[in-house]
Amino acid sequence: MTKSQIPNPKSQIGHCVALAGGVGGAKLAYGLAQVVPAERLTIIVNTADDFELFGLRISPDLDTVMYTLAGIANPETGWGVAGDSFETLAAIGRYGQDTWFRLGDRDLATHILRTHLLRQGRTLTVVTERLSRALGVGPRLLPMTNDWLATIVETDEGDLEFQDYFVRRRWQPVVRGIRFAGVGTARPTPEVLAALEAAHIIILCPSNPLVSIDPILVLPGVREQLKAAPRVVAVSPIVGGQALKGPSAKMLVELGVEASAHTVAARYTDFLKGFVLDQVDAAEEARIAQPGLHVLVTNTIMQSAADKMMLARHVLEFAASL
Amino acid sequence: MTKSQIPNPKSQIGHCVALAGGVGGAKLAYGLAQVVPAERLTIIVNTADDFELFGLRISPDLDTVMYTLAGIANPETGWGVAGDSFETLAAIGRYGQDTWFRLGDRDLATHILRTHLLRQGRTLTVVTERLSRALGVGPRLLPMTNDWLATIVETDEGDLEFQDYFVRRRWQPVVRGIRFAGVGTARPTPEVLAALEAAHIIILCPSNPLVSIDPILVLPGVREQLKAAPRVVAVSPIVGGQALKGPSAKMLVELGVEASAHTVAARYTDFLKGFVLDQVDAAEEARIAQPGLHVLVTNTIMQSAADKMMLARHVLEFAASL
Repeated sequence: MTKSQIPNPKSQIGHCVALAGGVGGAKLAYGLAQVVPAERLTIIVNTADDFELFGLRISPDLDTVMYTLAGIANPETGWGVAGDSFETLAAIGRYGQDTWFRLGDRDLATHILRTHLLRQGRTLTVVTERLSRALGVGPRLLPMTNDWLATIVETDEGDLEFQDYFVRRRWQPVVRGIRFAGVGTARPTPEVLAALEAAHIIILCPSNPLVSIDPILVLPGVREQLKAAPRVVAVSPIVGGQALKGPSAKMLVELGVEASAHTVAARYTDFLKGFVLDQVDAAEEARIAQPGLHVLVTNTIMQSAADKMMLARHVLEFAASL
Repeated sequence: MTKSQIPNPKSQIGHCVALAGGVGGAKLAYGLAQVVPAERLTIIVNTADDFELFGLRISPDLDTVMYTLAGIANPETGWGVAGDSFETLAAIGRYGQDTWFRLGDRDLATHILRTHLLRQGRTLTVVTERLSRALGVGPRLLPMTNDWLATIVETDEGDLEFQDYFVRRRWQPVVRGIRFAGVGTARPTPEVLAALEAAHIIILCPSNPLVSIDPILVLPGVREQLKAAPRVVAVSPIVGGQALKGPSAKMLVELGVEASAHTVAARYTDFLKGFVLDQVDAAEEARIAQPGLHVLVTNTIMQSAADKMMLARHVLEFAASL
């Protein structure tokens, strides 16, 4: 199908739900937000990276998606607000505190208000709605849970909290396993389950399958909803055996599996109806495609806004065709 | 006594305790810190202006004194850190929040860490010690209480919390009365009572008598300690019928009393041994002096660091002579 043949899906598609982690998820979410009317788009975001720093609740993936959709994300770093300064953090450092987690001044406003609203008894769902609306974000952003679920990375240096592994140690320790603390008690929100149930199309964004998508999938009821959904499509975060950003490929290899699009698809076969491969991995199509699982080969590398929109259109069109 | 006759009291005086509020208190505290060895100087600071903003605990007087002694205070404003920026506050404003209380980025580090340490269960006394030591402050800063005591300003526009009256409404409402919420339960800290008991000299800094010094005096046991102390000296914050800064004079007049050094001295006669008047009020000396209450007339206007040191020396010398 050539570009000119792709109809604008804006007027055609029903409710679309995307599952997202950090940067890769935010990029595709941005593309979807340009193509899908805001009232028909919901982004369910991983919160297993969340943590407290200086008493402030930090939700890195929610913020990356929120800032990206608000048009204020820092494209250089993949986190934080474009053009942010670091005066508060420097002053915190002068008080003798560690400052390895880079909190910008504008970014801090988010953490201060989120923490304040949570302490007043509001849920993370309500707080996220309020903050994202204030920044002019149209689509609905939903944290996967209002409960505590925390990724623990089991490494050759011991068990590490996610930000300790990811930011402080720059994902250098060798991963032996991953587990989610709180997995016995955390529940997806009613809003998450309702959105999945109502979705015409569900898209797993090209986010880390181990630490961005898995924490959403382990929440009770989510995988069942995906199995029952008519059109679930995943976009591979692994391209040419590498992660476009972050430690996905390194983690997969350290866990003893191949870093490939095939490995990613295999994790989702119980509910997946479609899988989107980058064109550099076209040779993998035959290995992945099977009865009931269709494959789309396209450009999945999103650099410009046009790339993001184009991938979003291709993915939506592919999903709608399933 | 001429300047050359004033011995350097550094090697002579015993433990000195100063009671302070905001700017005027901080200035004299700065002077005292240059003249008195750090281990012999304790500053007891009003906390009845404290409040919460965006879930952060703000202690304006403690911060003014701490920043002043650390050499980082903003001399233009009387609050905050010199050269501070306001990126976080601007971003908080973009979230639709009121930003009438000006929180600078570097200043926010103090509030974030104070709030964090308090929530971990530490007392304000311990937190203040930790923060002030980290900034290189030598003398001991003691909050007057670890409990909640809040100045309520009764005005023609109704009862106002202190910062609402002072900052938001720029002390324009007409004052009908002042009361301290929590006065039945708040206690001075053991450190405050011990410092007062051990003090050779106690100095009431030129701070607002109604809202900076009174909240300290209403704490149970403080006034009794002052009555028992050998040398208690107050420096008038009213010079020529005016407050050098802030609403002292306006408040006194609205409460139906004369805005004068005499009025200030009269509030403390039950414990005062010495009173320091500015030279422009030299004519008041006769009205104030009485058996057991000596008066020093000197320059009390502190603009330069030298002014602050000179006044500190004069006050200490005067107190030591009582």
